[in-house]
Amino acid sequence: MNNKNYGDLSLEMHKKLRGKLEVIAKCPLETVDDLSIAYTPGVAKSCLEIAKNAELAYDYTIKGHTIAVVTDGSAVLGLGNIGATAALPVMEGKAALFKRFANIDAVPICLNTQDVDEIVRTVSLIAPGFGGVNLEDICAPRCFEIERRLNQELDIPVFHDDQHGTAIVVGAALLNVCRYRKQELENFRIVINGAGAAGTAICKMLINLGAKNIVVVDSKGVLNTNRADLIQEKLELAQTLEELNNENPTATSLKEALEGADVFIGVSAPNVVDADMVRNMSDYPVIFALSNPTPEIMPEIALKAGAEIVATGRSDYPNQINNVLVFPGIFKGALECLATRITKQMAIAATKALAQYIPLAKLSPSRIIPHVFDEGVADIVAAAVSSSWKSSTGNSDG
Amino acid sequence: MNNKNYGDLSLEMHKKLRGKLEVIAKCPLETVDDLSIAYTPGVAKSCLEIAKNAELAYDYTIKGHTIAVVTDGSAVLGLGNIGATAALPVMEGKAALFKRFANIDAVPICLNTQDVDEIVRTVSLIAPGFGGVNLEDICAPRCFEIERRLNQELDIPVFHDDQHGTAIVVGAALLNVCRYRKQELENFRIVINGAGAAGTAICKMLINLGAKNIVVVDSKGVLNTNRADLIQEKLELAQTLEELNNENPTATSLKEALEGADVFIGVSAPNVVDADMVRNMSDYPVIFALSNPTPEIMPEIALKAGAEIVATGRSDYPNQINNVLVFPGIFKGALECLATRITKQMAIAATKALAQYIPLAKLSPSRIIPHVFDEGVADIVAAAVSSSWKSSTGNSDG
Repeated sequence: MNNKNYGDLSLEMHKKLRGKLEVIAKCPLETVDDLSIAYTPGVAKSCLEIAKNAELAYDYTIKGHTIAVVTDGSAVLGLGNIGATAALPVMEGKAALFKRFANIDAVPICLNTQDVDEIVRTVSLIAPGFGGVNLEDICAPRCFEIERRLNQELDIPVFHDDQHGTAIVVGAALLNVCRYRKQELENFRIVINGAGAAGTAICKMLINLGAKNIVVVDSKGVLNTNRADLIQEKLELAQTLEELNNENPTATSLKEALEGADVFIGVSAPNVVDADMVRNMSDYPVIFALSNPTPEIMPEIALKAGAEIVATGRSDYPNQINNVLVFPGIFKGALECLATRITKQMAIAATKALAQYIPLAKLSPSRIIPHVFDEGVADIVAAAVSSSWKSSTGNSDG
Repeated sequence: MNNKNYGDLSLEMHKKLRGKLEVIAKCPLETVDDLSIAYTPGVAKSCLEIAKNAELAYDYTIKGHTIAVVTDGSAVLGLGNIGATAALPVMEGKAALFKRFANIDAVPICLNTQDVDEIVRTVSLIAPGFGGVNLEDICAPRCFEIERRLNQELDIPVFHDDQHGTAIVVGAALLNVCRYRKQELENFRIVINGAGAAGTAICKMLINLGAKNIVVVDSKGVLNTNRADLIQEKLELAQTLEELNNENPTATSLKEALEGADVFIGVSAPNVVDADMVRNMSDYPVIFALSNPTPEIMPEIALKAGAEIVATGRSDYPNQINNVLVFPGIFKGALECLATRITKQMAIAATKALAQYIPLAKLSPSRIIPHVFDEGVADIVAAAVSSSWKSSTGNSDG
């Protein structure tokens, strides 16, 4: 089935169902007694208990299993800044995936503003009814500040999936490349093309996992501290990389950067890598071409040019880098242990657990990452996340 | 079952279910194709269509059948200002009732602020994903300004149920008293005790329905324009009533006001009316004692003192004044015809339709208002609301 067909089928389905979500009552509502228990006067007792101890909201309400999927519509899929209302089908889809893969109840919240202060304030004000916030499709660099400030203000976990979800799946896939080849991540020369939300988060995750040699490229060329055109976030990233690599990058273009590189990670644009560029990489290079639906280079071209392992964002090729492997388990784990945030350690734990899901003997160039429908992925991610939080808080029994 | 038992049963149920709501996916999510249709890449087509024409959100998303139930936790049931988190069990209950009685999907939004500007701004910013806003348990006088400003800013209906829902049920019940007795509303001398959200809205509704003689009493006594202690909203109400009655009220206390009155409507506090006060009303007075769970006077006492018709907010007496007779149908009707607000005419139409639900021959002192489980109440309210909107916009075919 090609993408055009998916679009038509999808539009038809959306029209028929009038959206993808439904809010149902779990309690009986068929008698006067039922109403008196679900609503007044009985409900007052739960309210008064929570008024005395707010933590009880996790026991008596939906808070403990309900999250907000929040967007400002500024960076929706590959469609760009289409606004809050047009983003709703994606947020509904995300909510549907939360239910399917982690039994988490998720509510789309589409914000009619793209002002950082207003987004932060609005999310803070609606937080009492939610156990977590998944930020979605908010463009860089605003997404960095929004996530940082919300994590400071709120006592529930806030997670920008486009950054960290992507970084965790990419990190797990690359860890499995290392396991499969019996190589160390620190010996890889890695080129990341794309310095937005995903590229930045991937870079930081790979450093946390032990990578020592990374070059990041944006649409103007290789990031380095000599460039006058960099926004603050990219300049900081360039500084980090120069400290890590112990030198300024010598390459200025993606093409130059790829010469001799072991790993290409593209979170950028269709067809920006050609066969010659792959041939000029090291022997048996690794290509993660994640631009979606059209990758930076098509897998068949990359493989023919010498790539050993290719991953994309697509479901019709092996090694799909799909965030659905991560976000359900992240929130499931965080909600289970009542974590107040998602720490770097929890993200690293999730990455390692996702990689280890595939036993060493089962790893192959076409299976370096679990499939979205592999059983129990969310559970092993959740367990790792929860265990990491508990050990960091010294609360080993939860 | 007494109220204490309801409280214990309710707490037990809330704890067992961990709240009352669940967000489920209506679309299949079992295959890679399913994911491609519900989410990327297929979903992009719906997004792009909506980006071109925002109205299509009503066709392709949950917007057309999903509302926000918004509170600031400032006036929750009879519990007062218990805050946003403690209000959540009530908002969940309200959402459950929306689903049960009108198949509307409702999402609790508990706001961690009681500032009018912030509430208005926050609700405006989250509005894109919702087809309507039910304001709930927000105290007077802030609720008046919040509702007015939201109706100005938003192109979706905003309805403060504690005001208008209550006013519509009370209005319908009183219209049925008139039908039953073959009397005219304009000839009734009516005393409303309570000048908050509900009392004010009831008063305005009864005027709209033709009442000519109304006295409103607050905790300090009868409203009149000579009182120096009145907030702006109460002063305006006093002015309206003096113009209507063509004189200043002579009574100063509830007791005096009730002398010779035909109808008492209490939205105030337990046990503020005694048998003597009822005996001093006109012959066969009508008593709506709506303080809940303990009414202004218990029905058996009022009946023994000469009342002919008694209504309360309780389910264990006849004539329960319950907003669930109204809010599901109001939003069902408004969503069906894509109304951008709930007009006064729509509220009046709902009131008359709710009254007419009971055929004249079936009216009796113990049946002046439909029962909450009477079949089809929401549908007849919805039809009246929708028809009123269409006739006001000249759009008779919807």
